[in-house]
Amino acid sequence: MTPFERRTRACQERLTDADADATVLFPSRNLLYLSGFDEAPAERHLLLFVPREGDPVFLVPDLYETQVRAESWVADVRTWSDDDDDPRDALADIVSDLALAGGRVLVDDTMWARFSQDLRAALPDADFGLAGEVVAPLRARKDDAELDALRRAGAAVDRAVERVRDMGDDAVGMTENELAAEIERLLADEGGEGIPFGPLVGSGPNGAMPHHSHGDRVIESGDPVVLDFGTVVDHYPSDQTRTVVFAGEPPAEFAEVHGVVQAARTAAVEAVEPGVAAGDVDRAAREVIEEAGYGDRFIHRTGHGVGLDVHEEPYIVAGSDRELEVGHVFSVEPGIYLPDEFGVRIEDLVVVTDDGAELLNDTDRGWRC
Amino acid sequence: MTPFERRTRACQERLTDADADATVLFPSRNLLYLSGFDEAPAERHLLLFVPREGDPVFLVPDLYETQVRAESWVADVRTWSDDDDDPRDALADIVSDLALAGGRVLVDDTMWARFSQDLRAALPDADFGLAGEVVAPLRARKDDAELDALRRAGAAVDRAVERVRDMGDDAVGMTENELAAEIERLLADEGGEGIPFGPLVGSGPNGAMPHHSHGDRVIESGDPVVLDFGTVVDHYPSDQTRTVVFAGEPPAEFAEVHGVVQAARTAAVEAVEPGVAAGDVDRAAREVIEEAGYGDRFIHRTGHGVGLDVHEEPYIVAGSDRELEVGHVFSVEPGIYLPDEFGVRIEDLVVVTDDGAELLNDTDRGWRC
Repeated sequence: MTPFERRTRACQERLTDADADATVLFPSRNLLYLSGFDEAPAERHLLLFVPREGDPVFLVPDLYETQVRAESWVADVRTWSDDDDDPRDALADIVSDLALAGGRVLVDDTMWARFSQDLRAALPDADFGLAGEVVAPLRARKDDAELDALRRAGAAVDRAVERVRDMGDDAVGMTENELAAEIERLLADEGGEGIPFGPLVGSGPNGAMPHHSHGDRVIESGDPVVLDFGTVVDHYPSDQTRTVVFAGEPPAEFAEVHGVVQAARTAAVEAVEPGVAAGDVDRAAREVIEEAGYGDRFIHRTGHGVGLDVHEEPYIVAGSDRELEVGHVFSVEPGIYLPDEFGVRIEDLVVVTDDGAELLNDTDRGWRC
Repeated sequence: MTPFERRTRACQERLTDADADATVLFPSRNLLYLSGFDEAPAERHLLLFVPREGDPVFLVPDLYETQVRAESWVADVRTWSDDDDDPRDALADIVSDLALAGGRVLVDDTMWARFSQDLRAALPDADFGLAGEVVAPLRARKDDAELDALRRAGAAVDRAVERVRDMGDDAVGMTENELAAEIERLLADEGGEGIPFGPLVGSGPNGAMPHHSHGDRVIESGDPVVLDFGTVVDHYPSDQTRTVVFAGEPPAEFAEVHGVVQAARTAAVEAVEPGVAAGDVDRAAREVIEEAGYGDRFIHRTGHGVGLDVHEEPYIVAGSDRELEVGHVFSVEPGIYLPDEFGVRIEDLVVVTDDGAELLNDTDRGWRC
């Protein structure tokens, strides 16, 4: 059984628990997660029906048939043609075959209205909910295939990080834009298949803005530089941050601040284990920073879940009582930001294991290159 | 009155004609078109209500309020906060203020189910349709502000095209990937704010595949190279294609094929005027190619509309009886593809004017650099 089929069967169990008759997906991360087929939302009817029992059914434009059969384990693939068919006829046949009339149907959370309206027209007496009710809890716990991809994405970004550090003196004199372009090149060279977000390169005072992407500022000797980037392998992203000084001596307060952030990151990682509340992991990092007197300079949550989406459940945020489970994957990324001076952030991804956390990123966390 | 308010008032007239009470939009090209506010779909409730009469109402997360007020003409902006509010309460207040209960409501075609389900819950007795019914016909006819942006996007890509041609010999020995990266750099340098699609660079036999993007093939002396790219200015794209030979002598049949495609493009542009069917423009291009004996090598439609979306109405396709109107903007892009040998495509964007067509692209159409 492929991982995709296994996830679909687990989804069907949840449909039973939720007293729902089917979930109907549309090109989305949910559809990729269950079927293996990856496609962007578009104007043609492309739907996956997962009934509570039995096998799923794909409805696809005929020009996608070859690709769907190649990429997905789903065997029942029904097609319609631009020239000859109204896809709503095929849709009506499928909901009839699956006996969904009058049932409870969970629609993909991001399904476009043009498709959900057709589904409602075909099922005038059904009760509608959202697919997230059954799919989101599954997606939060990563299976072996997902962990394998996440580990490979982590290894690829680690190799790129090491090459960036090795630039040393050579990075001095580059603009942030130039360094960001070089980082993208290195990520591709190390096997990355795309970037989950544009590299963040925050040099000197720009590092004090957590969402600064990159600009035309020239990196100078002694600048702390926040480097936050990741890459994608088999649809799964990596995401890590290191704060380095490529050459020269940093501002007086920098080494101390960097040490505090390292300690906060370590405390948070050590707090991770099954059954712990997400808010307690945030608390572990925040306490270290507060005790060092920088509490008001740690201006964001400690982390976010990572999977097919680079931001997803669980969020590691103050006050969250969501319990961590084995297979949850999230970032631990405390930071301290001193406006007009510099910023420090250190980020790793972790997997919750039976007795703690496994690191998906593991390069040098020091600031000297 | 801003162009955005003018479009909204025209939309309200169409709502009256359609016997609809309101259209409700979500971050989309439709929302940008009417409000001036540009945002990607995301998980927070962000909706624009355009009633048949009176003024539109925005419902936005409070962290967007400043941006919405700065970018949009809409004055009635209601906010909700992550911390304190359920956005469904504000949604219920708005549909009550606008008296939409039991009415006919046109929902944005791409609105996510999670939002359209909330709208339905607030309006259990309403009849729902799609916003495209009233917005798409408006968007097809470009107004002065849109034409101005399209002209500037066209001018920017034309300058980049000239710089690519000027590479001449220097392009020989580059891979398609390298040339594509250089094209992106030149587009940004000429004022482009982004690319509507990745540059297509089809050298030698790769040019015979109309959707080939670019690969690691090295461009050789004598290679015909299909160069299809555009850029974005103020949200509007350009899109053009030239087929060139950077150096050396092309295959024997190439010059003739290139001449046929040029003649087909000219015939199609000359066929454009208000009241002509889109299918007749396709026919004009296709006839030239058929008469030259290459009819079975012209394997796609002649063109597509261009606006906020780079593919939209009207499509210039065989058999379409859709009448062209003043202000329609579309591509004219006939091509001939000889498998395993080379391809030729020449593409310009045109605006339908009172008595014919205005070209939005106008660089040399010959093949010698």
